Amino acid sequence: MTEAMSRPTLEAVAARAGVSRATVSRVVNGGDGVREPLAERVRRAVDELGYVPNQAARSLVTKRHDAVAVVIAEPETRVFADPFFALQLRGISKELTAHDSQLVLLLTEGRDDHARVGRYLAGGHVDGALVFSLHLDDPLPVLIQRAGVPTVFGGRPGWSEGSAPSETAAGAAAPVFVDSDNRGGARAAVRHLVGLGRRRIAHITGALDQTSAVDRLDGFRDERPDADPRLIVESDFTPAGGERAMRELLDNCPDVDAVFAANDLTASGVLRVLRERGLRVPQDIAVIGFDDMLPLAEQTDPPLTTVRQDIEEMGRLMARMLLGGLDRRGGDAAPGGGEPSGVVLPTTLVRRASA
Amino acid sequence: MTEAMSRPTLEAVAARAGVSRATVSRVVNGGDGVREPLAERVRRAVDELGYVPNQAARSLVTKRHDAVAVVIAEPETRVFADPFFALQLRGISKELTAHDSQLVLLLTEGRDDHARVGRYLAGGHVDGALVFSLHLDDPLPVLIQRAGVPTVFGGRPGWSEGSAPSETAAGAAAPVFVDSDNRGGARAAVRHLVGLGRRRIAHITGALDQTSAVDRLDGFRDERPDADPRLIVESDFTPAGGERAMRELLDNCPDVDAVFAANDLTASGVLRVLRERGLRVPQDIAVIGFDDMLPLAEQTDPPLTTVRQDIEEMGRLMARMLLGGLDRRGGDAAPGGGEPSGVVLPTTLVRRASA
Repeated sequence: MTEAMSRPTLEAVAARAGVSRATVSRVVNGGDGVREPLAERVRRAVDELGYVPNQAARSLVTKRHDAVAVVIAEPETRVFADPFFALQLRGISKELTAHDSQLVLLLTEGRDDHARVGRYLAGGHVDGALVFSLHLDDPLPVLIQRAGVPTVFGGRPGWSEGSAPSETAAGAAAPVFVDSDNRGGARAAVRHLVGLGRRRIAHITGALDQTSAVDRLDGFRDERPDADPRLIVESDFTPAGGERAMRELLDNCPDVDAVFAANDLTASGVLRVLRERGLRVPQDIAVIGFDDMLPLAEQTDPPLTTVRQDIEEMGRLMARMLLGGLDRRGGDAAPGGGEPSGVVLPTTLVRRASA
Repeated sequence: MTEAMSRPTLEAVAARAGVSRATVSRVVNGGDGVREPLAERVRRAVDELGYVPNQAARSLVTKRHDAVAVVIAEPETRVFADPFFALQLRGISKELTAHDSQLVLLLTEGRDDHARVGRYLAGGHVDGALVFSLHLDDPLPVLIQRAGVPTVFGGRPGWSEGSAPSETAAGAAAPVFVDSDNRGGARAAVRHLVGLGRRRIAHITGALDQTSAVDRLDGFRDERPDADPRLIVESDFTPAGGERAMRELLDNCPDVDAVFAANDLTASGVLRVLRERGLRVPQDIAVIGFDDMLPLAEQTDPPLTTVRQDIEEMGRLMARMLLGGLDRRGGDAAPGGGEPSGVVLPTTLVRRASA
């Protein structure tokens, strides 16, 4: 272990610059009231000695850490297996770097660790949090509320629909989120399949404890209100889940002629099963995904027709909204009440060979 | 943005429990000297009110954050593209979770952001740092030394070999690292190729500003001290780099009959080029990789003979050494002097079809 060299102290800087401790402290903490030649002398001494202020003490004064936490409510293994998160992080990282704010990704093994995440958020280590992939029964929103850090959610939080944690109703301002138009995108996908003359259109859902999956299912139902219930198969946004769901679908509804899958990873599992069974895409069964995850959506066989959402832009926008809010803390940015408010980005149908 | 509900204060807890502020503070900070029935009353009030102590203030007292930073000296995009890092993080995450310590991954866009990483490390937000993928000219080691946080490095730091930052020589204890036996593994790979009767054995290196790449090249040279210099091609640990290097190799040395690639990603690029050129593996050219990265090494065509290192175990061991060192701070754990000391894990040759 690399033990510390003795770190240069505030006193050492003061001695080097020939000023008082209080003067150094004021300069280091960005305070005013120090004449420029003196301030310059302090800054030079700081540079020469490699002095780093104790941020724990400093942040008690400045209340700013120049760091933003990102919390993905999934186990670390999923965060690295699903390219969706890498794309969102790329957008966030670019935006935070442009503001010289440190991206602090809090990884966990699973939901049992969320209390610890809440403690870190409450601990005065970050200026705010970006939180995504929330699940309905996750204690994280309550923990975040208690932690009292400004937060922007990725995806509409589901707890507005009757399941809100009691704490969010009283006192707190409304949560702010960035989302894609999941319901509208799903409708466009199903309308496209109807336009191709398909009659037995199935939907393989995402994890229904997430609003993105619920909204895509609602969009499907908007267009197919009388769908045979066996044509709706619950799944979990993964390729393996897509394979399982497609096998079940072929067993129960051998006459299915189109599948709208809740995301591209699910669709990739669907395509694998159809190839296995010797079924042609799109001739026998048309397939549409969701996300337009590249390069995956272009490299499947056949290339995937899908609903595009700009995942990287979602991340960038979340970071921008959080930083903007921090700059106007105490202003009129936060709407009252517990009803979530958010920005919903448009989605567009991208046509390739699979439908 | 979710603005804070008013957070319950220390005073509110004291009022609820019917004790003094000082008593609450002592219980919350794990101090002794509070009788059990009283302490229990405080803990109940803390639970009921959802009180979270201000960690910035608290950590000034306890000096412990229950959080460990992980710094990967690569841009965020590479961290997510190279499965090596996901494996190391998996080992680290498991170990930290078992100790209820929060994994704080500090992501950057690139080397320009390392000064900010240094500030976060110095800022009193974490108990220690795990640092990997260091490059020789990276300012990070100096910044980490200045930050004064206990650190374990993944991979032998290269700056012991004459290029050590001046700060590390004086005063600081030796850096501690965990590494794999890169040189021994490279030797075993080349000896295997020699044993197969190969005579024109090439090496495609990794990024030579990293000790892992240097050590593998040294292992190659141990076995092939008189190798034709055109048989050694510098590359960068990526599939695209492997492709470029293999094309160069075939152009300059068309009689090459074996390739030892610095890692499996490089080898996957090599195999792609050989297939393109209609060369058979292993009949025309035998190929060996390094890492035994799964599932990649089993899914290449043909499956890859490679040198196995236990990447996840490296991560786990780094975390264990750091946490162990924290528990005995001030003890005799830290060796003196500036010479790095470390644990080197064995590597083993895994034979599949490519050699």
